[in-house]
Amino acid sequence: MTVLDQVLARIDADLDASLDRLFAFLRIPSISTDPSHAADCRAAAAHLAADLRGLGIAADLSETAGHPVVLGCGGGGDARGVLFYGHYDVQPVDPLDLWDSPPFEPRLKTLADGRRAIVARGASDDKGQVMTFVEACRAFVAVTGALPLPVTMLIEGEEECGSKSLPDWIEQNRGALSADLALVCDTGMWDASTPAITTALRGLLYEEVEITAADRDLHSGLYGGPARNPIRVLTSILGGLHDADGRVTIPGFYDGITDPPADVLAAWRSLDLTPDNFLKPVGLAEPAGERSRTVIEQLFCRPSCDINGIWGGYTGAGSKTVIPAKAFAKVSFRLVAGQDPDTIRQAFRAFVREKLPSDCTARFEDHTGAPAVAVPWDLKQLAAARKALTEEWGRDALLVGSGASIPIVADFKRLVGMDTLLIGFALDDDRIHSPNEKYDLVSFHKGIRSWARILSALAG
Amino acid sequence: MTVLDQVLARIDADLDASLDRLFAFLRIPSISTDPSHAADCRAAAAHLAADLRGLGIAADLSETAGHPVVLGCGGGGDARGVLFYGHYDVQPVDPLDLWDSPPFEPRLKTLADGRRAIVARGASDDKGQVMTFVEACRAFVAVTGALPLPVTMLIEGEEECGSKSLPDWIEQNRGALSADLALVCDTGMWDASTPAITTALRGLLYEEVEITAADRDLHSGLYGGPARNPIRVLTSILGGLHDADGRVTIPGFYDGITDPPADVLAAWRSLDLTPDNFLKPVGLAEPAGERSRTVIEQLFCRPSCDINGIWGGYTGAGSKTVIPAKAFAKVSFRLVAGQDPDTIRQAFRAFVREKLPSDCTARFEDHTGAPAVAVPWDLKQLAAARKALTEEWGRDALLVGSGASIPIVADFKRLVGMDTLLIGFALDDDRIHSPNEKYDLVSFHKGIRSWARILSALAG
Repeated sequence: MTVLDQVLARIDADLDASLDRLFAFLRIPSISTDPSHAADCRAAAAHLAADLRGLGIAADLSETAGHPVVLGCGGGGDARGVLFYGHYDVQPVDPLDLWDSPPFEPRLKTLADGRRAIVARGASDDKGQVMTFVEACRAFVAVTGALPLPVTMLIEGEEECGSKSLPDWIEQNRGALSADLALVCDTGMWDASTPAITTALRGLLYEEVEITAADRDLHSGLYGGPARNPIRVLTSILGGLHDADGRVTIPGFYDGITDPPADVLAAWRSLDLTPDNFLKPVGLAEPAGERSRTVIEQLFCRPSCDINGIWGGYTGAGSKTVIPAKAFAKVSFRLVAGQDPDTIRQAFRAFVREKLPSDCTARFEDHTGAPAVAVPWDLKQLAAARKALTEEWGRDALLVGSGASIPIVADFKRLVGMDTLLIGFALDDDRIHSPNEKYDLVSFHKGIRSWARILSALAG
Repeated sequence: MTVLDQVLARIDADLDASLDRLFAFLRIPSISTDPSHAADCRAAAAHLAADLRGLGIAADLSETAGHPVVLGCGGGGDARGVLFYGHYDVQPVDPLDLWDSPPFEPRLKTLADGRRAIVARGASDDKGQVMTFVEACRAFVAVTGALPLPVTMLIEGEEECGSKSLPDWIEQNRGALSADLALVCDTGMWDASTPAITTALRGLLYEEVEITAADRDLHSGLYGGPARNPIRVLTSILGGLHDADGRVTIPGFYDGITDPPADVLAAWRSLDLTPDNFLKPVGLAEPAGERSRTVIEQLFCRPSCDINGIWGGYTGAGSKTVIPAKAFAKVSFRLVAGQDPDTIRQAFRAFVREKLPSDCTARFEDHTGAPAVAVPWDLKQLAAARKALTEEWGRDALLVGSGASIPIVADFKRLVGMDTLLIGFALDDDRIHSPNEKYDLVSFHKGIRSWARILSALAG
């Protein structure tokens, strides 16, 4: 029996105790956005730090401008190891009357389809997920007396309110954080039987544009025709941001982007992410992105451009025959690896200015600019983790992208120069942030086993 | 000495008394929008009716759902005559502290450039203008004992609050209104020395469009790319409403439009209505209408399309990465003779629907649809009135269009089948609707003389 087999057997045998420990963690109402729960946040951090110390990880609270970070270091040796990130804070629980049981009294519930689930605020996001990793470490320590590789733990307490204090804290503590690889357990499975590693997160560039034409509002009867209408100018420019094939027309927009390897693309194409099951549930039918790309490519590895808001002129009830002086829009771009936010910003602004009539002006406001983050497709730890997940679940682990940004991953790359694997066991029906949040017992149990396999593989 | 010469001499000799009568009318604070001035409105109507009766015009108040109409009929005989329209109501006077003298205590004032002007609320709009016609009638009666042709007077009291009761009233009283021609004195001169007849008023079609894509707001990170963005759809459609030459691209939009006669176009082109003096004062430079047309054509005889309002998505401060479910716009068209509002409405809706992705819907709301009104270029009374004005002012009277709608003119055409000549003596600096409204003494005096010449000419 290999060490890993012994560890997995220990995990199976210890599941009830693992659940008890998770329940104890879940009972602490560590709602980070609510100042009246500040002491609970600190209690959750202290509870976790104490638990980690029991595993030989030198863990303690590290102060920030907000709730403390749990920082721990264990596993010794010369090898560089992994940095594990999660968060101990949870979302508020209102509306409380929609909960079937009190949110901080965790319980096991059998769902209508027979699945068993842990129900509590934080069961999935992120206490349950954090504990899958902690319990895997505990099993190694129980079987071998030590962690299989050096492990740094960074469990923050402000993720649910924007991780405001974290970038500064990381910058100040980067020495303590250096590792070969970051592991984040705050994402989901592809579906209940298919594990996934998120390897690419799109970046975000968010611009606001204000077009000014006349120096005052004009009457459309007296001026309509000769007078420039800034809404016409704005719609004409923004209406030209995409061509008939759904491609963004800004010159150079796609420069530097490369496609995922053929096997990854092939795996994506085999997925059942069709317009019917991705778009139909929200009332749509036709993919609106690049015509030559599948829905999943449009989401995982292709940039997009959206107009998130537009306004100008008269927007009240009835009619007003005004030609306004100004028109406004908020335009954002989801970026992928190879695209530089500053370059795209300048290209967008040039695109607008180039189309601007000579008697109009454009003013821009920059709201956000964050590059995409992507794990190199040939990263050896990626292959190792993928293989480990595949062995645990009996199904090829997918490498997926995420359309949305997760700032911590960009920070790890930017501030510590570290790649991140996002591996999690949440399911789409976990109702995170909502009443009756749950985490499947299978997610918890096989999540622990998955981490054991991954740690074993990464320890090499 | 012809009768007309005697009438003109009488007008000159009677000017001080004419002013006294105008001042008496101006002293009545007939603010139609303010219910506390309802009795003043009625008093102004009664005052005017009594004055008209003194001229042998059988005038009385005719009740409406709102303020009464002054309806009078005089001049007898078998010949059909003219219908004169004006209004006795005035705009509110606030902000009162910006008036140099009380608004209802009319006075003569010498302006900085030496012009003399009557200052009071209503001096120009429209009591002063109405009295130019009344005083011309009075001079005829004084000299000849009678009006030179049958005159019907329709002086309403709700023009400044939208003439709400008038269409119904006209419909009910159309028998009393039949005349060869309507005369409206509520417009202006081209400039202080150039008289003008407004012969064409653009119509108005005002549509609201709502585009729906998904059945809920979506997160642009999770959906950006595949998910249809209704603001993108809207900007793409509206951005295509004009081509690079400034022409509206809706199929059939220009069908049925004819150009004015060559001499009218030549007269317009000789006017100094350049981009520099029409657009520069409001901060613009380039005419935005059809490239092949002058500014004055774009205003007087060409239709236009404007987006008067647009809204959708997040319009607050900062950024929100939303793909909204809906986007909205208010789109209006200024129409010219030959264009049917219903046809254009259907063409616009078809234009939008044709470009709509299959998973979006468009909902339309119709706010207004009024056809353009134009006097036939060869109307014999038009030539007569033009000649009369030219003789009084020593300068060719211009035939002009107006970009804006004046509903009463459309009603006269639609309900009574009557053409309307709009002739007025207001100047651009009259500050109508604003503090210190004035009417040049020259406008008043030569306005009276102009009507005398016109009435004489129309009486043939």
